Amino acid sequence: MIRFESDYLEGALPEIMARLLETNTEQTPGYGEDSYCAGAAALIRTRCRAPGADVHFLVGGTQANMTVITAALRPHQAVIAADTGHISVHESGAVEATGHKIITLPSPDGKIGAAQVERVVKAHWDDATHEHQAQPAMVYISQPTENGTIYSRRELAGISRVCRENGLLLFVDGARLGTALVAPGNDVFLPDLAALCDVFYIGGTKLGALFGEAVVITHDALKRDFRYIVKQRGGMFAKGRLLGLQFETLMTDGLYEKTAEREVALALRLRRAFEEKGWPLLYDSPTNQQFPIAPDEALDMLSEKYSFSEWARIDEGRRAVRFCTSWATRPEDVDRLIADIERV
Amino acid sequence: MIRFESDYLEGALPEIMARLLETNTEQTPGYGEDSYCAGAAALIRTRCRAPGADVHFLVGGTQANMTVITAALRPHQAVIAADTGHISVHESGAVEATGHKIITLPSPDGKIGAAQVERVVKAHWDDATHEHQAQPAMVYISQPTENGTIYSRRELAGISRVCRENGLLLFVDGARLGTALVAPGNDVFLPDLAALCDVFYIGGTKLGALFGEAVVITHDALKRDFRYIVKQRGGMFAKGRLLGLQFETLMTDGLYEKTAEREVALALRLRRAFEEKGWPLLYDSPTNQQFPIAPDEALDMLSEKYSFSEWARIDEGRRAVRFCTSWATRPEDVDRLIADIERV
Amino acid sequence: MIRFESDYLEGALPEIMARLLETNTEQTPGYGEDSYCAGAAALIRTRCRAPGADVHFLVGGTQANMTVITAALRPHQAVIAADTGHISVHESGAVEATGHKIITLPSPDGKIGAAQVERVVKAHWDDATHEHQAQPAMVYISQPTENGTIYSRRELAGISRVCRENGLLLFVDGARLGTALVAPGNDVFLPDLAALCDVFYIGGTKLGALFGEAVVITHDALKRDFRYIVKQRGGMFAKGRLLGLQFETLMTDGLYEKTAEREVALALRLRRAFEEKGWPLLYDSPTNQQFPIAPDEALDMLSEKYSFSEWARIDEGRRAVRFCTSWATRPEDVDRLIADIERV
Amino acid sequence: MIRFESDYLEGALPEIMARLLETNTEQTPGYGEDSYCAGAAALIRTRCRAPGADVHFLVGGTQANMTVITAALRPHQAVIAADTGHISVHESGAVEATGHKIITLPSPDGKIGAAQVERVVKAHWDDATHEHQAQPAMVYISQPTENGTIYSRRELAGISRVCRENGLLLFVDGARLGTALVAPGNDVFLPDLAALCDVFYIGGTKLGALFGEAVVITHDALKRDFRYIVKQRGGMFAKGRLLGLQFETLMTDGLYEKTAEREVALALRLRRAFEEKGWPLLYDSPTNQQFPIAPDEALDMLSEKYSFSEWARIDEGRRAVRFCTSWATRPEDVDRLIADIERV
Repeated sequence: MIRFESDYLEGALPEIMARLLETNTEQTPGYGEDSYCAGAAALIRTRCRAPGADVHFLVGGTQANMTVITAALRPHQAVIAADTGHISVHESGAVEATGHKIITLPSPDGKIGAAQVERVVKAHWDDATHEHQAQPAMVYISQPTENGTIYSRRELAGISRVCRENGLLLFVDGARLGTALVAPGNDVFLPDLAALCDVFYIGGTKLGALFGEAVVITHDALKRDFRYIVKQRGGMFAKGRLLGLQFETLMTDGLYEKTAEREVALALRLRRAFEEKGWPLLYDSPTNQQFPIAPDEALDMLSEKYSFSEWARIDEGRRAVRFCTSWATRPEDVDRLIADIERV
Repeated sequence: MIRFESDYLEGALPEIMARLLETNTEQTPGYGEDSYCAGAAALIRTRCRAPGADVHFLVGGTQANMTVITAALRPHQAVIAADTGHISVHESGAVEATGHKIITLPSPDGKIGAAQVERVVKAHWDDATHEHQAQPAMVYISQPTENGTIYSRRELAGISRVCRENGLLLFVDGARLGTALVAPGNDVFLPDLAALCDVFYIGGTKLGALFGEAVVITHDALKRDFRYIVKQRGGMFAKGRLLGLQFETLMTDGLYEKTAEREVALALRLRRAFEEKGWPLLYDSPTNQQFPIAPDEALDMLSEKYSFSEWARIDEGRRAVRFCTSWATRPEDVDRLIADIERV
Repeated sequence: MIRFESDYLEGALPEIMARLLETNTEQTPGYGEDSYCAGAAALIRTRCRAPGADVHFLVGGTQANMTVITAALRPHQAVIAADTGHISVHESGAVEATGHKIITLPSPDGKIGAAQVERVVKAHWDDATHEHQAQPAMVYISQPTENGTIYSRRELAGISRVCRENGLLLFVDGARLGTALVAPGNDVFLPDLAALCDVFYIGGTKLGALFGEAVVITHDALKRDFRYIVKQRGGMFAKGRLLGLQFETLMTDGLYEKTAEREVALALRLRRAFEEKGWPLLYDSPTNQQFPIAPDEALDMLSEKYSFSEWARIDEGRRAVRFCTSWATRPEDVDRLIADIERV
Repeated sequence: MIRFESDYLEGALPEIMARLLETNTEQTPGYGEDSYCAGAAALIRTRCRAPGADVHFLVGGTQANMTVITAALRPHQAVIAADTGHISVHESGAVEATGHKIITLPSPDGKIGAAQVERVVKAHWDDATHEHQAQPAMVYISQPTENGTIYSRRELAGISRVCRENGLLLFVDGARLGTALVAPGNDVFLPDLAALCDVFYIGGTKLGALFGEAVVITHDALKRDFRYIVKQRGGMFAKGRLLGLQFETLMTDGLYEKTAEREVALALRLRRAFEEKGWPLLYDSPTNQQFPIAPDEALDMLSEKYSFSEWARIDEGRRAVRFCTSWATRPEDVDRLIADIERV
């Protein structure tokens, strides 16, 4: 079985494994207070042109989402998200378990718009009984989205403006951020995220690390006591340097972007194969996830040799599925898959 | 200003005030462990033909909702509700503050259907990654709904069947239950609720009590330790007999139903006046809330003498509003309002 | 049975019942936005010489405690309290259920001292791993305490100073505040509380109201959005004017203090009777709760005619119990009890 | 600086690093549903003689504690622990953040006794107002304790009996379990833990893994839906096989015990050096943590070359500190330290 069902099926980039081995017997303080974490944070601050940002390293995405949201909101406050957002549908109620409502906005492709956000915020404040509703106080978006689509700089700036005019925080989930940074047509880079958002994270797990997400906080009030919240929510990693080492490696010599480019290039080859086959794409994704709509028989045949994720039934005879590439996807496996797509 | 904006604008029925006065200097144990609470619970059990039910008296509806839901669910479990449900939109995130997600179903008139519930439950269990989602474990509906509509016995039985087949609890919010019990066409009575639901409550606040909701629990597992949860959530009322006295009074000589009949009769007079005026009704409500759609100028003129709730903008020149009657609404005030409606 | 086991065994002062009856059919807006609540709040602000204070009316003490604490603290913050404090031992974990740790300090008589507080706060900040502990951010004390004792102005000022020097909020639970205000030797009055604390409440339930606690907030950051939190925690009372009416009545013509004086005078008569009998007092209480240590046989005989609370076993043949007086305690019942004490 | 301040200062055992490298490019399903996790779980079940146990792999100890406790308790239930327990003092309020009170018992050496537990449970149920208290429902202990001490089989069986007689769950935190298993005098082995407890974990982080704790659940009700809770609390690890691989390695050829033996042997050499020097030990620890009481000048001199943890001030001139050994501690560094101890 050649696996395309997700981007966390293998270990880590050889450069990362090498660094872990090299430093294995060194002694460093625990809990992220070592020089590797400090070094990685400094590299990230430089890359983001955000010298005042705080950087924290967490193990996973759900952990990052719930920790940031619980740190940011007072008990009566809610976070606005796409109804397809990871926090809305794929975290077993982790955000609600911290006590906060998610106000969901309909989204056909994973994105939400500034006007949508503005409407829901204005509706709240215009309601004479707004004290009987959860108060919108943060916007959560993903770049790229769970559907592989990306926000343009203009779109992101629009949401940012609405947030700042209305006193909301803007939080960007970047579990696959690298693949957006290198996507064809992208114009949102790390300094843009640092300037337009209050907090975002740079995902490592899906870009060649064993695990790890680097949370970047630019909003001053959010920085305060963040490590207490990390510890309280179970995210304080004992051998914290493992996170620092991985991000230091990824942020050196452009390894993060190179890895992303490789993932995206292979995914776009798949995309072209789907298009040439005449299989429409459910979302217009320039990143490492591709969502073709294909006949059931074709997919059933492919599933004998390849794994992919079931996504949605489209009609009687067709369904949408998801193919993912990762740092470890082999070009020859993509070739083989493309040949089989042409054949079925 | 003659007020119709809600049904909790006045004090309590004279029969209730008289009982409170009569017993004012009696000494009874606190926290609901007095003979009045016991007597009221016995009357309710009899009326529900549910000799094994537990009955608890709480002060208000949001308190009842959050207490029941937190008592019933494990941390990863969610409650299904209409997107218009009181817990979904009008409790400042009280359910999420207990840690639970609300899975909302679209509802044009406040009701949800058995098939809708079944679909969302099946979709959960059919998803290979259901462990990454909150698990549906309870259905919350209101009788009557927040829009004044009522479930038929058949509809309620359908939801009940889906719940039992799938291991979900069924919870009915009866903040205005009396008005459903006496509504024209209603065929759902207290014994039906006791038989078909796992827990429901009989609202007092909106039916002539100073305050109070009687929670009836028929599901055995839910009975266990319920008073601990009441105390923990701030709902254990020190002078608990005040609740018992009010419900004993309401449950004696049919006072509860008589009060509801009075509320509903006046509301239906208003409904007829709206219809005769040619103002369509947003929802088909046979209970004490009526939602006419009327021209802005007409409503603006009425608002000089009468208060009512703004509900929804319908189009450029018309909006929907809500008129409520209560135990204390005076027939002559309804006459006056009807005359003014005819005139505007 | 003549009952002395607590101070919430009867209804309300006749003045209060009369006001409720007089205004019963008036129509007012709900949820505390009526003129009676506004009037009561204005009286309280004047009495506290705190023109900028916010005043909110809640139904009960546990509700007030959990609402204030959840509104005040960030998720990683803890509240310091006596190990005998009401929130520590008698609220079924209501504070922990809002997510916050209670750091308890040993207290022989219900009180804690400024030095104790300072030690625990300094120990926290001196610990190199303080991020691995909950962060002390509020002090909770009761005036009078659960043991009937009272803080002097000097003691309260000491705690207040430590709190302000260390950035902690000071919260005073005044469920029985009236009995402290009138206690012999007391020098802490409403303006002192408003000046020294950040938030406190004036208890009504145990001082002649049917129910109700008036929360007074002087700290600006705590005022923000407090009503959202009240609603979310189930404390927004539909017919809110019932609370306003009761506090307006209590705050008029010194009724609150007169009621307290009556309670305390009768309790102090009991205290003298215990002392004359040679029964030591477990705590030195100048308020409406008295805790004699008496032989089991004597208490067993008294328990045939009088109810009181079991408190603690002292030795083989003696135990401590609690006698409470209330607004409704009859002098002739106290006479009867004293005669029986002398006799046993 | 030679570091002895804790046991998570280095990477992982060479055997583990080798396995991670060997398998690095393999593709496996995520989230712990791979064959390595299945294999590791099978080995653990065998070692525990608990064929029906469920085994889950989590990243860290605080995460394991909060996940197990929130999965096990209803909202009004509390966990009993030593006042020195890790959950009591060193997790930033993580357990309270899940809504649960910790009932702490005084402990001079990290251990609590069956009689202590029984007293607190009986006191709860004997109190007429137990519904106003959090309900004890679980006992949490650590083996070895945070002070390095260990429970005997008899002690553990005593606590287990009290728990079962009173319907409480017994949970053992085994973050350093290996060091107890091999400690001189120990008679509690994996099958004893599986037989006497309801849930416990086998710590990897402090015994040669990069990270990881293996949670073993023997109590049937606790098994249900545990993965939902893991996901909800941020503990579902994407590349789950990394946990399986590490535990499979540790559980093969006795590597876990060999690692523990090495840690303990070096720690006991230190212990003897302290004793020979005449420095008393604060706790009688047969495991990898040692707590000598020594003169300040001696410790200050040692601190120039060695790191250790500050623990407690004993008197004017002496304090207690903690020395830890790990899988990576070098015998020659222990020799050097011992020589310096003799010299100071």
